[in-house]
Amino acid sequence: MEIRSTVGLTDREGLSMAYTPGVARVCEAIAADPALTQHYTWVPNTVAVVTDGTAVLGLGDIGPAAAMPVMEGKAVLFKQFGGVDAIPICLATTDVEEIIATVARLAPSFGGFEIEERLKGMLDIPVFHDDQHGTAVVALAALTNALRLTGRSPTGTRVVISGAGAAGVAVARILLGAGVTDLAVVDRQGVLNSRRTDLTPVKRALARDTADRHDRSGSLADVMVGADVYIGVSGGTVPEEVVATMAPESIIFGLANPTPEVLPEVAHRHARVVATGRSDYPNQINNVLAFPGIFRGAIDVHATAITDGMKLAAAGALAGLVGDDLAEDLIVPSPFDPRVGPSVAAAVSAAARADGVARR
Amino acid sequence: MEIRSTVGLTDREGLSMAYTPGVARVCEAIAADPALTQHYTWVPNTVAVVTDGTAVLGLGDIGPAAAMPVMEGKAVLFKQFGGVDAIPICLATTDVEEIIATVARLAPSFGGFEIEERLKGMLDIPVFHDDQHGTAVVALAALTNALRLTGRSPTGTRVVISGAGAAGVAVARILLGAGVTDLAVVDRQGVLNSRRTDLTPVKRALARDTADRHDRSGSLADVMVGADVYIGVSGGTVPEEVVATMAPESIIFGLANPTPEVLPEVAHRHARVVATGRSDYPNQINNVLAFPGIFRGAIDVHATAITDGMKLAAAGALAGLVGDDLAEDLIVPSPFDPRVGPSVAAAVSAAARADGVARR
Repeated sequence: MEIRSTVGLTDREGLSMAYTPGVARVCEAIAADPALTQHYTWVPNTVAVVTDGTAVLGLGDIGPAAAMPVMEGKAVLFKQFGGVDAIPICLATTDVEEIIATVARLAPSFGGFEIEERLKGMLDIPVFHDDQHGTAVVALAALTNALRLTGRSPTGTRVVISGAGAAGVAVARILLGAGVTDLAVVDRQGVLNSRRTDLTPVKRALARDTADRHDRSGSLADVMVGADVYIGVSGGTVPEEVVATMAPESIIFGLANPTPEVLPEVAHRHARVVATGRSDYPNQINNVLAFPGIFRGAIDVHATAITDGMKLAAAGALAGLVGDDLAEDLIVPSPFDPRVGPSVAAAVSAAARADGVARR
Repeated sequence: MEIRSTVGLTDREGLSMAYTPGVARVCEAIAADPALTQHYTWVPNTVAVVTDGTAVLGLGDIGPAAAMPVMEGKAVLFKQFGGVDAIPICLATTDVEEIIATVARLAPSFGGFEIEERLKGMLDIPVFHDDQHGTAVVALAALTNALRLTGRSPTGTRVVISGAGAAGVAVARILLGAGVTDLAVVDRQGVLNSRRTDLTPVKRALARDTADRHDRSGSLADVMVGADVYIGVSGGTVPEEVVATMAPESIIFGLANPTPEVLPEVAHRHARVVATGRSDYPNQINNVLAFPGIFRGAIDVHATAITDGMKLAAAGALAGLVGDDLAEDLIVPSPFDPRVGPSVAAAVSAAARADGVARR
């Protein structure tokens, strides 16, 4: 990737305009009215894609230098699918306070950030953690269509999520927001419920909204019996004999990369709808379907935040694009469907207005 | 300006290469050998152009938002004249320690930085303060040619610099490095010399290397009598009766923007060679002649620093480009001379090798 000028600069006059002395007039105008930043700079169309290199793809803590190729890839996708100018920022610190302080200091340089939960409250520009919320949006879109295909409703469906890290929590929260009521989230110690004494505050709160409601407990194998939907965001492996205990016409999303929790070959022996995070199988649940359009839509209305309503709207737009083409092997649109970015963006802009976070 | 992908991305296979799962292989390779960052990412060709918005052009403390247009202009020039991908970073802090901490944390993301003196020791990538050192390099190039034109040598020339801020100190230091021996630097209180009790440590050290050597003191008007060269980096105004006391065939560089310390119309009545920082007069001493080529040359050899030798080499290359075209109104090349960037880069690369800071 590269930086490119969008204006020609071929003679002394152009240089006088783009740089000294001409640019001084633009600086002075913004100094007098900071809102003009939106019109006179590239800031409103930019997103800083920030990482500390501790949780890159499925690769774990590989450090900031090794994280750069993923960040660059993401920046390229941001531009191609959302028209957003994204700048990769790999930080030489893993201290949360330092990360927050650093990003807060960078705030005047960018129109949005893709990073941590805690930053949201500190900044009045969109902040989004793509690896969790992007995945959650696309998973919800895929689930919406898989339920439609199998004649289910959100309220009548039993869902199991394995993995209670950032992505698992985000997927659970967006499904709850979309009306799923019978949900069990499983970590390495088993089903999250309030009888467990080893839960973090985040997991305890999630337990109350999920397994507690239907008094579910035990191991992954226990709650998989009769489950309609399995969503894996854990990186583990589910034995085939456990998969076999699910309800008829079940739905299996194994989202770990590169090795899904249930390999598609295995899943297809027991389930009707199968999705993974991989591009070499059908139904790829990839956040590239979400983040370019979400930021495009947020930026277009100068949103001060990315709300739950905007995420639900993005998922709804994605699901809707499949339309009459809906089939077992087509529950999410292709990333190369040119309608994806604009449709998601339009839905997100509208939701931002509805949620009162749009500035124009 | 915009971010642009340098590779096509038109199908699922391309997506699998540029993003998941293909990019994981690149990440893992860099995790195993961080030096591969130089080959597999855009980092080595990037420079973060950093400001806190307190000293922008001649505009003063206008804040980070209002500084962005200048940073963008600089980024465009970096690309056009040096092929360097520059990213503007405007910081929401003016605390020096916070700026240093922030830039140090950003270090894995960029191949070089344009900013503060103190950062140099902390980072093993090129750090350069353009508004001072860039100006100093071009001023030295211009002075070299002006001395040639008027038949002077560095050692036989009396130079007065008005302004002892960051730019004045940098210009004085590079002139000393280039062999100028009779130099007086003047601030608002008069000539810097060791008899003064109000000097900062930086000014005290400079006094010892400049006015002390020839026992110069007093006001600007005092040292201008008989001076061969006046270089203004102060933003003040020199009265015409003071200009009139300079030596015959004098040289006047009024570099304040937008209003030179000596207006060219006035300067020409007394001096043989006149230069300003403005593009609407001949002999524009503009750092666009320096920074794109300096970073291009530093990046090309993976320099760990930008040394004094590299700056002197850049000035020498710039001065040499004028060649036989040398004339009163042509002492520096045009920024649009296509030889500028490559010539400066080649000289800087060679000097980096000579100074032992090149990594390849």
